Amino acid sequence: MSGSPLLNELIEALRCLPGVGGKSAQRMAFHLLERERERGLKLSKVLEQAMQKIGHCSRCRNFSETPVCAICASSSRDRHVLCVVESPTDLAAIEQATGYRGQYFVLMGRLSPLDGLGPEELGLGLLSERLAEGDVEELILATNPTVEGEATAHYLAQLARAAGIRPTRLAHGVPLGGELEYVDRSTLAHAFGSRQSVE
Amino acid sequence: MSGSPLLNELIEALRCLPGVGGKSAQRMAFHLLERERERGLKLSKVLEQAMQKIGHCSRCRNFSETPVCAICASSSRDRHVLCVVESPTDLAAIEQATGYRGQYFVLMGRLSPLDGLGPEELGLGLLSERLAEGDVEELILATNPTVEGEATAHYLAQLARAAGIRPTRLAHGVPLGGELEYVDRSTLAHAFGSRQSVE
Repeated sequence: MSGSPLLNELIEALRCLPGVGGKSAQRMAFHLLERERERGLKLSKVLEQAMQKIGHCSRCRNFSETPVCAICASSSRDRHVLCVVESPTDLAAIEQATGYRGQYFVLMGRLSPLDGLGPEELGLGLLSERLAEGDVEELILATNPTVEGEATAHYLAQLARAAGIRPTRLAHGVPLGGELEYVDRSTLAHAFGSRQSVE
Repeated sequence: MSGSPLLNELIEALRCLPGVGGKSAQRMAFHLLERERERGLKLSKVLEQAMQKIGHCSRCRNFSETPVCAICASSSRDRHVLCVVESPTDLAAIEQATGYRGQYFVLMGRLSPLDGLGPEELGLGLLSERLAEGDVEELILATNPTVEGEATAHYLAQLARAAGIRPTRLAHGVPLGGELEYVDRSTLAHAFGSRQSVE
């Protein structure tokens, strides 16, 4: 197809990236070969390391190349607050947007019996052990506001209450900078129902 | 940012790919770690090989990991027809779309004095030698129908005529499946002027 079997192999291999089809893979391969050999080589090395060494933190299940991740190992993070998220992406979003200084627990999914994701797959045994340690005073439920995320939050809230821990949930409502006219009906109804008194 | 320095490094390294920003790089890294470790590892190996071994064919300047590329080395390709393209992408497009069985010459650019791309940078010396060998009878000018591509084609046509070789140019006109109403004016004017008699 291009006169170079190795190039064809590279184009094929690049298609393992999400959202990358034949055309994009070809463009990426040519771009790297024409202009970014150094960075391409660097990418190959980092990628190999990452695929081989990154596992899961034994405390919070987040991605980590060490047995315990940097956040769990840090002495400057508050051990009394634990925030439960569905994925490492959500954790990264909270780290970037908020000044949260507590710890995390990453479910790596949400309760979804049809997909074979039950309490065991989400490491809820590990979470229960963590709650039983007695350090945690507040469990922040930061699962997504989807049907499955809400069900997961409901389940986790019961788990927290059983351990005598206060569960909290992220506030729902009208996004900042949004216009009421364009907010979906259920969010608007929720925001209206949860209105707060102005100080 | 994510609790894993190696993961942050991977996200940063993925940004060398064209069209990939911070968000996409993060999504790619998580996708590979969660679902495609094997293919990710395979990609790292192929990428390393490609960055180190792929150079340029000494006859046609196309990407090749061997001194002479597969197309130039093939005995089943017609040595009497030579098709000049701007980039390996164009070569791949012609290979995929047409039944062309001749050989190629890849300029790796187009004449563009302002960008410092002159005859030397496009390997036109190599092309002249090739034409002087005496095998080539037709030089197909398949540069892009842009201002610079046309200028390059014009220059190449002179080169061909000087060597006593017949230059040809890809036909311009209304694309198949297009509607006249939506064809741009210059293409339509060209197609109208170059109308052909119906057999």
